[in-house]
Amino acid sequence: MTQTLLTPDGLEAALRAIGAERYHNLHPFHRLLHSGKLDRGQVRAWALNRYYYQSRIPSKDAYLIARLPTAELRREWRRRLVDHDGDGVSSGGIERWLKLAEGVGLDRAYVESTDGILPETRFAVDAYVHFVRDRPLLEAVASSLTELFSPTIIAERVSGMLANYDWITPDTLAYFNARLTQAPTDSAFALAYCKEHARTVEAQQAVLDALRFKCGVLWSQLDGLYLAYVEPGFIPPGAYDPGADR
Amino acid sequence: MTQTLLTPDGLEAALRAIGAERYHNLHPFHRLLHSGKLDRGQVRAWALNRYYYQSRIPSKDAYLIARLPTAELRREWRRRLVDHDGDGVSSGGIERWLKLAEGVGLDRAYVESTDGILPETRFAVDAYVHFVRDRPLLEAVASSLTELFSPTIIAERVSGMLANYDWITPDTLAYFNARLTQAPTDSAFALAYCKEHARTVEAQQAVLDALRFKCGVLWSQLDGLYLAYVEPGFIPPGAYDPGADR
Repeated sequence: MTQTLLTPDGLEAALRAIGAERYHNLHPFHRLLHSGKLDRGQVRAWALNRYYYQSRIPSKDAYLIARLPTAELRREWRRRLVDHDGDGVSSGGIERWLKLAEGVGLDRAYVESTDGILPETRFAVDAYVHFVRDRPLLEAVASSLTELFSPTIIAERVSGMLANYDWITPDTLAYFNARLTQAPTDSAFALAYCKEHARTVEAQQAVLDALRFKCGVLWSQLDGLYLAYVEPGFIPPGAYDPGADR
Repeated sequence: MTQTLLTPDGLEAALRAIGAERYHNLHPFHRLLHSGKLDRGQVRAWALNRYYYQSRIPSKDAYLIARLPTAELRREWRRRLVDHDGDGVSSGGIERWLKLAEGVGLDRAYVESTDGILPETRFAVDAYVHFVRDRPLLEAVASSLTELFSPTIIAERVSGMLANYDWITPDTLAYFNARLTQAPTDSAFALAYCKEHARTVEAQQAVLDALRFKCGVLWSQLDGLYLAYVEPGFIPPGAYDPGADR
C-alpha cells in the first residue's frame, strides 16, 4: 500500500487508532487485574515488575532531554523528571509506586533491588530506554505518546481495583492520582511536537512505528506477567514466587 | 611507577594537583583575555566559541542524570539543568551567556547558530559530551571536577576584564556571578561522590584521568582560539572573522 502524507490532524487520528488497537488496556492481564480476578500474589507480581518500568522512566526522560536542542524544550521535558523523582520535598512517582508496592504487601528493599522481576520486564523496559537514547529525536518523542491513552486505563484500574479488592485502599493507589493530571499535560506537548515536526511520509510513518513499538513495550510486560503468574504459570528461576511469599 | 591506593583526602589532593598543573587559567589566551591584551574581535571570538560549550552543558548533564541510579542522586544533579536552562521565569546560564555575547557586540542569532565556531571548539566540546555519555559513571562524574578550580579563574576573569576593557560592563559579565555560587555547590557534591566511590587503585586512576581529560577539553578550546585569533592567526574557512566584523 502506498502511504500518503497525512495532515497533522490525520496523523493524530492515526496515532489514536494505534492506541485503540494496541494499548495494554486490551491485554487479558489488565482485565483480570481491574476486575478483581487476581489474588494478592498476582497483584504483588504486577506491582513488583511495574516498579522497574517506573524506576527507569527518569533515565529515559533524561536521555531525551540530553538530545533536545534548546533550553525551552529541555525545560518542558524536565517537568517529567520532577514528576517522577520528586523535588526533595514532595515525593515523586517512583516514591509513590514504592508506596503502592508496600501497600499490596511487598518489602520495599526487595522491590527497589529489582531482583525478583521477570526477564521479560527487564528486556522490554531496557528496550524502551535504549530506543529513546538511540533513535531519532522525533521517534523518541513519539514513543511517549502512549500517555494519550493512559487516563482511560488509570480510571479503569483505580475504580476496578478499589471495587474488587477490599485489601487495597485509595491511599495505596495515590500514584495514579498524580498521573491523571501529569499525563495529559505531557502527552499534549509531545503530540503537538510530533504533529509539527513529522512533515514527510517517512517521518510520519516513523512516528506511528514508534508508538507501535511503545505499545509493544507495555503489552509484553503484561504478557510476561500472564505467562508466569496466570497460566501456564511458568515462573522463571529467580523471579518473585507468590507461593513462597504466603 | 606502581600506583598505590590513596586515602579519600589523598585523592582530593591528587585531583587538586592536576588542576594546579593543567587548568586553563594557565593558558596564554586566558592571560591575554583577563589582562586586557585582546581587541574586541578577539574577545568576540572567545565569547562566540565559548557559547557552544555553554549550550552543550545541559546535554552533558542530562546524559549523566540518565545514568544515575536513584531519584536522590538525579535530583542533586538536576539542579545543574535548572542552573543552565533556567526555569522559565528566571533565566539560566545559557541565556546569560547570550547576554554576554550580545554585550561584547555579537548578534544573538549568529551566536545561537554556532555557524562561526572553530572546529577545535566543536570537537573538544562534543568529546566532553560523549565522554559523559559513554564512560563509566564514576569517570563521568569526575570529569565535572574542573569546577573545583573555576572560582579562581572567574574572579581573575571578571576583575581583569572590567579593569582592562572599558567597553565591558558588570551587567555583561553577570553570567559569572551565578557561577560563583553554583560551581562550589556542584563540585562539592561531585568531589564527595568520587572520594566515596573510587575505592580501588584502578578507579582512582580513572578518576584522575577523567579530570585530566576534562582539563584538556578546556585547554584545547583556548588553543584553538589562540591559533586562529592571536598567532599565527589562521582563521579556518567559515569561522568567525573579526576583520569582516568591523
